[in-house]
Amino acid sequence: MTRHPLAMAPYSSPSTTDLLIIGAGPAGLMAACWASQYTNMTTRIIDKYPSRTATGHADGIQSRTLEILESFGVVDPIIRKGVQHAEMCFWGYDKHTSGITRHKMDSAQTDKSRYNMVLLNQGIIEQIILDYLGLEQEGRVEVEYGKQAETLELLEEGEDEYPVVVGVKRVGQNGANGHCSDVETIRARYVIGCDGARSWTREQLQVPMRVCSGDTTWGVVDIAPITDFPDIRQSCAIHAGDRGSIMTAPRENRLVRFYIYPKGDGRLSVEGKDRSEVSLDEIVGAMAKVMKPYSLTYKHCDWWSIYKIGQRLVETYRPHDRIFLAGDAAHTHSPKGGQGLNVSMQDTYNLTWKLCSVITGEASPSILDTYELERRPVGEELLKLDTELVKAYEQDTSVTEGVERVRGQYIDFMTGTGVTYGSNDLITGKKADTSVAKNIKIGMRLSSYPVVGQADGISMQLVSRLTSNGAWRLLVFPGDLREPSNQSRLANFANQFNEQPHLPCLHKDLKSNRCCPLLETIVVHPSPRTSVNLLDLPEIFHPFDETWGWDYSRVFADDGSYGEACGHAYARYGIREETGCLVLCRPDQHVAWLGSLGDVEALDQYFGPFVGRK
Amino acid sequence: MTRHPLAMAPYSSPSTTDLLIIGAGPAGLMAACWASQYTNMTTRIIDKYPSRTATGHADGIQSRTLEILESFGVVDPIIRKGVQHAEMCFWGYDKHTSGITRHKMDSAQTDKSRYNMVLLNQGIIEQIILDYLGLEQEGRVEVEYGKQAETLELLEEGEDEYPVVVGVKRVGQNGANGHCSDVETIRARYVIGCDGARSWTREQLQVPMRVCSGDTTWGVVDIAPITDFPDIRQSCAIHAGDRGSIMTAPRENRLVRFYIYPKGDGRLSVEGKDRSEVSLDEIVGAMAKVMKPYSLTYKHCDWWSIYKIGQRLVETYRPHDRIFLAGDAAHTHSPKGGQGLNVSMQDTYNLTWKLCSVITGEASPSILDTYELERRPVGEELLKLDTELVKAYEQDTSVTEGVERVRGQYIDFMTGTGVTYGSNDLITGKKADTSVAKNIKIGMRLSSYPVVGQADGISMQLVSRLTSNGAWRLLVFPGDLREPSNQSRLANFANQFNEQPHLPCLHKDLKSNRCCPLLETIVVHPSPRTSVNLLDLPEIFHPFDETWGWDYSRVFADDGSYGEACGHAYARYGIREETGCLVLCRPDQHVAWLGSLGDVEALDQYFGPFVGRK
Repeated sequence: MTRHPLAMAPYSSPSTTDLLIIGAGPAGLMAACWASQYTNMTTRIIDKYPSRTATGHADGIQSRTLEILESFGVVDPIIRKGVQHAEMCFWGYDKHTSGITRHKMDSAQTDKSRYNMVLLNQGIIEQIILDYLGLEQEGRVEVEYGKQAETLELLEEGEDEYPVVVGVKRVGQNGANGHCSDVETIRARYVIGCDGARSWTREQLQVPMRVCSGDTTWGVVDIAPITDFPDIRQSCAIHAGDRGSIMTAPRENRLVRFYIYPKGDGRLSVEGKDRSEVSLDEIVGAMAKVMKPYSLTYKHCDWWSIYKIGQRLVETYRPHDRIFLAGDAAHTHSPKGGQGLNVSMQDTYNLTWKLCSVITGEASPSILDTYELERRPVGEELLKLDTELVKAYEQDTSVTEGVERVRGQYIDFMTGTGVTYGSNDLITGKKADTSVAKNIKIGMRLSSYPVVGQADGISMQLVSRLTSNGAWRLLVFPGDLREPSNQSRLANFANQFNEQPHLPCLHKDLKSNRCCPLLETIVVHPSPRTSVNLLDLPEIFHPFDETWGWDYSRVFADDGSYGEACGHAYARYGIREETGCLVLCRPDQHVAWLGSLGDVEALDQYFGPFVGRK
Repeated sequence: MTRHPLAMAPYSSPSTTDLLIIGAGPAGLMAACWASQYTNMTTRIIDKYPSRTATGHADGIQSRTLEILESFGVVDPIIRKGVQHAEMCFWGYDKHTSGITRHKMDSAQTDKSRYNMVLLNQGIIEQIILDYLGLEQEGRVEVEYGKQAETLELLEEGEDEYPVVVGVKRVGQNGANGHCSDVETIRARYVIGCDGARSWTREQLQVPMRVCSGDTTWGVVDIAPITDFPDIRQSCAIHAGDRGSIMTAPRENRLVRFYIYPKGDGRLSVEGKDRSEVSLDEIVGAMAKVMKPYSLTYKHCDWWSIYKIGQRLVETYRPHDRIFLAGDAAHTHSPKGGQGLNVSMQDTYNLTWKLCSVITGEASPSILDTYELERRPVGEELLKLDTELVKAYEQDTSVTEGVERVRGQYIDFMTGTGVTYGSNDLITGKKADTSVAKNIKIGMRLSSYPVVGQADGISMQLVSRLTSNGAWRLLVFPGDLREPSNQSRLANFANQFNEQPHLPCLHKDLKSNRCCPLLETIVVHPSPRTSVNLLDLPEIFHPFDETWGWDYSRVFADDGSYGEACGHAYARYGIREETGCLVLCRPDQHVAWLGSLGDVEALDQYFGPFVGRK
């Protein structure tokens, strides 16, 4: 571990923060979304660029990322401004007949998620999150642009409450503002380094990366294409035999994203070159050759680049007890699968609630080990997928079949909905009795089905109730409450719940934001909605607040409704009514534990090792 | 007409604006939404209060208002933050049995609109629109709070380009800011007076109001109720015989809106009183009596008021050639139907695009007559509905049946979806051949059904394509394009279209915002989507722009799709394939004209009288 001495002058006096996020790209902004939910800790986020991404870079937002953004309440403008990825079109070149093949497929994943992939410029995505942080989260966490981390000092554990000392320099200000000093020292409890493929954080700690492949170079262009190609407003994989292959994706306004790969007949020889050696017209010319017999020209280019990148995975996601790497700082790969932004945001979505729980004293630091345990396998899988896609694109013939096959095989990974964390301190994989709900997978994020609010008759997606505010949720499926035996089982469950050493405290401890306990109990019953009176249920399902009265938001009927097609949640989850079912979801909606209504003690034991311990 | 001399000093030098909106309540903000679409004119909006509504006031947003907000792209946060009005519950008191009756009904209007009513505090609605104006519309129109109109001078027509001269005073600043003068003169081309029930604008012009009923007084309370009443999270009409009647509506967070009416046994004698004479506890106490045998108390009150208001309708909506009244300035009534905010916003939604079209020279001032012709009947109907509701609430018995009957009778008016404008210069009611589309009603806003984008395969609501940006839309329904006869009919239509005196200009004239012509041609065909190639259709359906290429956004298939249940639009609109069908929608989505594909000349004649003439 390197130690960089702090330049003592002219640094201003050190300021402290519980969490320092280095880098305000998608991964950093996701971390900021989480941190802004915790009003009882401090967070700073710095970025060396003077402002958000303007154009270009990532543009594909997969289903799971949209679900996550929905959990913060920030998905709507992304859906409205972006382009839905409704259909995928494979164009091939049959070398036997010399003919063109065209094959369309539905790219919606309606059985896996309530969101399809959306295509939108990374800059707009960043702006939407910045607006959310400013307006909805009242600027509790605000990106400090134009601040570059320069030095890193690590104090001994126990030496200081804020052992990570980062020297930061203002950049791009040209000394215009006399009131601000040019340099500043930030002392942090924890640091997330999500500062991109050339991560400064990673360099400071000299973290080695495993190189899985040599660098390849590819061209990327955002233009308003002028073309008679009939599928220009859909996502396409186009392979024109020796003439090379390209990928396209329709975008907001009339833009289209094009990727071109160096394989082919070498007419676009970008291999090993960078932007200074290749012109935009050269790239578009090479793409036009692939698209023949259709024409392709352009007048407006929004952004273009030549990328040189290899498959790399960092050797450790946690190079220091207090410092974590995430996003491109941890893994780099080709853009073929539309994964970069997504896996990066999902890294910090996994990490930050854990960090915040530790910082605020809700959980013991031991849970931080699960970050690498959970996210490294995802990084590994990402590179595997990338390798397969690279291989498929490198095939001379039937590339479209190859790409389609890989996409089919990895679709649950690509959408992010199938990512399942293995057994660890926060995922009780092995001990659990999964027969109580045969379609609920421990370690995976809970699937969502519409249910009806008991109190208001409003149909909604069950998982929409599991907003990302730091609360754990215990979903209780008691079976039909018209059965007296189910009623008394539910009453017994509530009594036992209140007698456990940890559960009642978790349930009552309010976080600093009103009405949000650490653990919320939610009941979903399959009885006709009108047969149940909410206040007749055990009190843990409608806790009383002296000011705000009863909580009416925790009881749902799996019953037919006026609106969406409700009434199938028990069947879809495969819940056995004989045993009833308890589903514990972590603050990130992943299923942590599964049991029957009698397993209250085991549930309490789940929390024992990490709750309330420092 | 009064003439108020301008105080010459210390007014600052007059500034000019094309449009001055007085009042930034819901009606004024809706006018601002429209005006901000027009980048080639200037708009100012002033409000005498120091900031937006904080709490209380209106809170019901009906289907049509949500559709309108969607057309500006501003509906999502309202849906997310508000409470859906899913179910209505009628509680009655049977005086024969002395028992309580309870009757629930679906309050969704899924066959009429894609939006149900939403309940949300007016302040939050205003904030959402302010954020939209600032962020999405780049602050082109910005509310100037704390500016009170004081004097009005009207110059002779022809004397000045800006004949309405308004003296404005800053209020509530206490002279703290030395740089701003306290008073200012604004010279405007046109003025919208939407400054509420006690409208200053109306007073200046001494516009009489027709008094339809004497003042009644009612109490309104926003509290977090503490109650065991089982339907507290639904909209209820509760009538407890002699004990009086209340209405409730669930709201954001744990708030509930309560209305209490003065009828009953007089225990709450608010009649004729104002807020200084009645306490909140007195009102809640009276409500608690109505809710017996259930309990009702509270700790948190967000807002409460005693309102005294009568049914009044202004004698003219346009008291001066250049000045229009809208919203509460034009009509006042009880809150019983949840109409106030909605009819007010719909007033300015009707008016402002017309004003902006005239100001920017797109249309002749003659179209401004249609404002009163269209909106006065709505005001009249509003008072009729209110009278019926008041009567229903005044009945001693079976009030719930009465209220339910009135609601059933007026539901299309209450949701705003049924409002139909009569024949006038902009609505060709009598001449049109309506048999070509028997379910499309001239003068009514077009109903929406999902269709599939030809180019992208994305299913969307057809009317979502008719965004409020000032463009007229000609929807062309050509019938199945696999039929050669339909193909040639469509080609003939396009040829004729291009030969008319007005249509081709309207179609080509781009407004200042890119890609938005005055008239957009859109085609909806019922052929299988894959049987049609977009660029094979006549050029008016995919106009070419030198920079941005072809417009791929104007062709839709009424075909099955991956997503929503598409493929039923022809059937739902009742379109006769033998004739095909042309539907002309105004910028406000109301159907202006209807004809067959051969009626191009008549279509052109529609525009003749008002297009391009000053």
